[in-house]
Amino acid sequence: MKDRQLLMIPGPIEFTPKVLRAMGMPTTSHVASNFVEVFGTALERLREVFLDPGGQPFVVAGSGTLAMDMAAANLIEPGDAALVVNTGVFGDRFGEILQRYGAEVTHVRAPVIGDAPPLEEVRAELGAPSTSAGQGYKLMTITQVDTSTAVAANVEALAAMGREHNVLVVVDGVCSVAGEELRQEAWGIDLALTASQKAIGVPPGLALVVAGPRAMESFRQRKSPVMSYYADWTKWLPIMEAYEARQTGYFGTPPVNLIWALNVSLGEILEEGMGARFERHRRVSTGIKAAITALGMAQVPIGDHVAASTLTAPYFPDGVDRSVLGYIKEAGVILAGGLHPEIKARYFRIGHMGVVNESDVLATVGAIETGLRQAGYDFDVGMGLTAAQEAMEQDLKPGA
Amino acid sequence: MKDRQLLMIPGPIEFTPKVLRAMGMPTTSHVASNFVEVFGTALERLREVFLDPGGQPFVVAGSGTLAMDMAAANLIEPGDAALVVNTGVFGDRFGEILQRYGAEVTHVRAPVIGDAPPLEEVRAELGAPSTSAGQGYKLMTITQVDTSTAVAANVEALAAMGREHNVLVVVDGVCSVAGEELRQEAWGIDLALTASQKAIGVPPGLALVVAGPRAMESFRQRKSPVMSYYADWTKWLPIMEAYEARQTGYFGTPPVNLIWALNVSLGEILEEGMGARFERHRRVSTGIKAAITALGMAQVPIGDHVAASTLTAPYFPDGVDRSVLGYIKEAGVILAGGLHPEIKARYFRIGHMGVVNESDVLATVGAIETGLRQAGYDFDVGMGLTAAQEAMEQDLKPGA
Repeated sequence: MKDRQLLMIPGPIEFTPKVLRAMGMPTTSHVASNFVEVFGTALERLREVFLDPGGQPFVVAGSGTLAMDMAAANLIEPGDAALVVNTGVFGDRFGEILQRYGAEVTHVRAPVIGDAPPLEEVRAELGAPSTSAGQGYKLMTITQVDTSTAVAANVEALAAMGREHNVLVVVDGVCSVAGEELRQEAWGIDLALTASQKAIGVPPGLALVVAGPRAMESFRQRKSPVMSYYADWTKWLPIMEAYEARQTGYFGTPPVNLIWALNVSLGEILEEGMGARFERHRRVSTGIKAAITALGMAQVPIGDHVAASTLTAPYFPDGVDRSVLGYIKEAGVILAGGLHPEIKARYFRIGHMGVVNESDVLATVGAIETGLRQAGYDFDVGMGLTAAQEAMEQDLKPGA
Repeated sequence: MKDRQLLMIPGPIEFTPKVLRAMGMPTTSHVASNFVEVFGTALERLREVFLDPGGQPFVVAGSGTLAMDMAAANLIEPGDAALVVNTGVFGDRFGEILQRYGAEVTHVRAPVIGDAPPLEEVRAELGAPSTSAGQGYKLMTITQVDTSTAVAANVEALAAMGREHNVLVVVDGVCSVAGEELRQEAWGIDLALTASQKAIGVPPGLALVVAGPRAMESFRQRKSPVMSYYADWTKWLPIMEAYEARQTGYFGTPPVNLIWALNVSLGEILEEGMGARFERHRRVSTGIKAAITALGMAQVPIGDHVAASTLTAPYFPDGVDRSVLGYIKEAGVILAGGLHPEIKARYFRIGHMGVVNESDVLATVGAIETGLRQAGYDFDVGMGLTAAQEAMEQDLKPGA
C-alpha cells in the first residue's frame, strides 16, 4: 500500500506491526467468547486512555465525523443553545452538525487564523449569552486540536468555565486524544471523542466517544427522540453495557478486526502510560517545530501557547508551493496539504501522533530538507536536523 | 482470532487470504494516488456486482444498519408513506428507521413466521393504500433475505409491483447481495444496500449502497434537509464522485484498509462472474438443506419457494437445545443461534455466503452430525453427508 514510506499526516498515521496483524487476522464471530472478552477489555481501556474512570465509552463503526454526530444528536434537542469555541474548520463543522439537530449555535472565533479565541471572550459569552432569547447555553464544544490550523485550545481553562456556568463541555479530540494532554474527568469534560486513525493508532473506521455522567444524564432526560437512528445511544448503550459485562448484544455487527486492533493499540498505549505518552508527543513536536523554524518557515499557529503537539502546520517559504510535497514524498515521507479554505495553498501539515519517535522526526526533517532543496529553496544542509536534534535532547535533560 | 475453525454464520463470513492481507497492509494516506485509484475502482466494481450500471454507489464506514439508515434518511421526508414487506426482524427494523425520519409506515406481514406476505396482499395494499390520508406510497422496502428467518422474498415480482405503482423500491440486501440472485437494474430496484461482512466478503465496517436514478432524483427533490448528518448524501455524493473521477475529496476519513480489501474482494467476485456466483450459492444451499432434512430437522422457512440460498435456519430436533452449538464448535464449525424473538431458543442459523464451497458444506454437515450425536440425538452416521453430496452432485449434472 505504501511500502516503507513514512506516513506523517494527521491521520491515518503509522500503525504498529501488532495492530496491523490484528487487522489481518481471520475474523471470528462477533459473539465468539474471545471477541466478547476483547471488546469488553477495549471498552475498559478506553476509559483509562481518556482518563475518565466514570465515563461511558462508545465504540461504533464510522469516522470521526460520526463521533461528532453522536455527541450532537444525543445531547441536543431542538431549541437548545450551543456555543462553539472555534479555532478552524472543525469548529465550523461542529456548528453545522449542532444546527442540524436543532441547536441555536453561537461561535466565538479566533481574531485571526492561527489564534484561539481569547478566554475572556468565551467567559463573557457564557455569562451573558447573545442567544436570540437570551437563554443560557446547554452545551459548548471545544476542538482540542483543529486539524485545519494545528491550533490547540486551552481545554483545561475552557472546561472550567463551562463547569462554572453548568454548561455541558464537549471536546472534539479527533486530533488529540492519546497524544495531546487530555484529562477528561479531572478537567470536568462531559464528553470527549476521537477517531481510530489518529493518536489512538488503529486504521480508520471507528468512532470513539466517552460520555461522562452529566452527559449521560442529559441524554436520559431528553424529551424528544434522537433524530439520527444510527447515532442513537438508545440503541448503542445496551450493546456497550453488554460487551463490557462480557455478554453479547446486537444492534449492528461490530467491526471485529478493527475492535481487535483497537484493543491491541490501547494495550500498547497504557503500557507506555498516559503521562509518558503526552511527554513524548511534546518532545517530538518540539523537535519538528524547531526544525521548521530553523529552516525559515513560519507556522499557522501564531505562537507556542496555541500550538498543538500532535500536528505542525508550516507555511511554505517564499518561492515554494505544494509541489514540494511531491519531492518530500519521493524522499520517503508522506505529508499532508493544507485544509483551511482561506489559506489552503499556502501551507502544509505534518502529523506526529501515535508511535511517532525521534527517528521519525529526523526522517521527516531530512525529507523536508531534501524536498525544499529540490524546490529551489536555499539553506544550509542539516540546519533543520541539527535544530531538531538539539531541541529533543534539551527536552530529555533532567529538569528541562 | 479463530484458528482453523470454519465460520459459517450469517456474517462475518470466511474471508480470502488476499482480502485479509489487504486488511493488514500498512495504511497509506486517504489521498495517496494509489488509494484514490483503488477507491475509484471499488466504486465502479460495486455497480457491476449490484448489476446496476446506472447506479450511484456509496461506500461509508459503518454497519449494515447505517446502510438502511442512509436509505431512509435520504429518501423519506416527514409525512411520506412507506410500505414494508415484512419477513422478519429486519422488516421491523426498517419500519422503525423509516418512522424515525417521519414516515407513516404500513407493514404487510407474513401470515406465519417463516412465510412471506402473499404477493396479492402487497399488490392490493399498493393499489389501495390503507394509510391515514389514503395517500399513495412513496417507497416500499423488501428484505431480500431476512437474517432472522432465512426467508427470501420474491424481489423480482415485488419490485415489478412497485414499478407499476411508481413507488421507490428499496431492497435490504444485507444477507443477499453477491450471493442471492439480485439484478438491480433489470428488476427495477431503486436502491439496494448491504454490509461488507456478508456475501461481499470483507470484514465488518462498511455500509454499501447503490442508488438508481429515480432514488437520486427523489433525493434531489427533497424539500427538507436530511435529518441525520452522518448519513446525508449531500455530504457523501461529492466524495464518491470525486474518487470515481480519480480525484480526492474530504468529508470523513475513508476506512482505507477496509476499502482496499473491498476492492480486492469485488475483483474476486467479478472474476467468478455474477451468474456463476449465484449458481454456486444455490448449489451450496441445496447441499446444506438436503442434509438438514435428511437429519430430520425442519426449517423456519415453510418451503423451498421462500427459502434463501445464503442462509439456512433449522429448528433443533426434539430433545436438543442450543448447547449443541457448543459441540458443533468443538467439532470445528462456528454456527449462529436464533435471532427472531418469538422462536429464538428453538432454532439455529447456518450462513453460507461468499467463498463458501462444497468442502465447507461437508465440513459443516460433519460437525453438525458430530454435535447432534454428542447432544444425544439418534441418527445413522453419514446420513447428512450423503444427502448433501447427492444434492450437490445432482445440481452439477448437465440439464439438472
